[in-house]
Amino acid sequence: MTDLIDKLHWRYATKNYNSAKKVDAEQLERILEAVRLAPTSSGLQPFEVFVVENPELRARIRDVAWGQSPVTEASHLLVFAAWDDITPERIDMMFDLTNEQRGTVNEGWEAYRVKLKAIVAARGQQGNYESAARQAYIALGVALVAAALEGVDSTPMEGFDPAKVDEILSLKERNLRSVVILPLGHREPEGDWLAGLKKVRRPREKLVTVL
Amino acid sequence: MTDLIDKLHWRYATKNYNSAKKVDAEQLERILEAVRLAPTSSGLQPFEVFVVENPELRARIRDVAWGQSPVTEASHLLVFAAWDDITPERIDMMFDLTNEQRGTVNEGWEAYRVKLKAIVAARGQQGNYESAARQAYIALGVALVAAALEGVDSTPMEGFDPAKVDEILSLKERNLRSVVILPLGHREPEGDWLAGLKKVRRPREKLVTVL
Repeated sequence: MTDLIDKLHWRYATKNYNSAKKVDAEQLERILEAVRLAPTSSGLQPFEVFVVENPELRARIRDVAWGQSPVTEASHLLVFAAWDDITPERIDMMFDLTNEQRGTVNEGWEAYRVKLKAIVAARGQQGNYESAARQAYIALGVALVAAALEGVDSTPMEGFDPAKVDEILSLKERNLRSVVILPLGHREPEGDWLAGLKKVRRPREKLVTVL
Repeated sequence: MTDLIDKLHWRYATKNYNSAKKVDAEQLERILEAVRLAPTSSGLQPFEVFVVENPELRARIRDVAWGQSPVTEASHLLVFAAWDDITPERIDMMFDLTNEQRGTVNEGWEAYRVKLKAIVAARGQQGNYESAARQAYIALGVALVAAALEGVDSTPMEGFDPAKVDEILSLKERNLRSVVILPLGHREPEGDWLAGLKKVRRPREKLVTVL
């Protein structure tokens, strides 16, 4: 666990990647597995993750991401895309999968399925999308930690045009919306303006209050 | 790292806590330190964390959280509260802190301060709150992993009335809004309907697409 704190100090939002240093395939799989195991509200996993390898797609994404170099220069690019809505069909998909994998039908669980459908219907499309986006950010947090524990650099990025990325990756047709992207790779500190700078966080007493 | 995957399998949304088993103070501090080190958009850390120990406050929160027992029975209760808006004053607070801690004023950083203020002004209060809430979820993801690595159980919970929790903890006066709560403690599998059930996640190929 001390290791986790050390690794959180080690990581930073890498601005300059060594494009020749690829992330090991097994490390990438473990990062993706951690994402897959991330908990989400009602267990819905209301997002998908795209590993963009195609250089042309990455160049087009960079064009709508203020030209930021990690998009094309990092070893891999993850795109977290949230469900654009939480529909009864999507709820059924996850609840049916749960019953199938557990081999049981639980009365309380089935009552909750009905209740959850009422909740999302009342919340509406935009509220459901916002909720789904938040869950994707849990997975982002888990991915960041998983990468750091592997000694893999990462750069969480919101600075892109989501509608354009949705077009480039044909996400609308899948009823998804891009919410955050995560280049993964290995730092090249030379030429990285942030590499030598102190990590700044508010002191504990400005962030945490005991009541 | 294999340890992380193992710990993510070990953890689950604990429904029944052993109220006699407290989380070690040093472990709690490490979990909070991991939260403090979590990255956020533009480094703003647009949230605060409340560690609610007061039993009366916890009983009142449980009353507006469908009576769910982890709120009062877990060892500790964390409340993640997002900034209700991202104001120029809050941006200045973090940018000034950054200059102070780094002992330098960077021209590019100062230009970004101006740009960021324009971005949040254009986005408006609700959009800024939603953005802040997403950052709190990164910290939630980091907290979950940190707890699991410590062998501490946790239960991410959205099932509460945020406006009521804001009242109970006087968050509105601090320009904060509760977004998610996280009981921390040690499981009591007996009497926990979820404890024995298989963890269900979509298979990799339904979650991850390589492009």
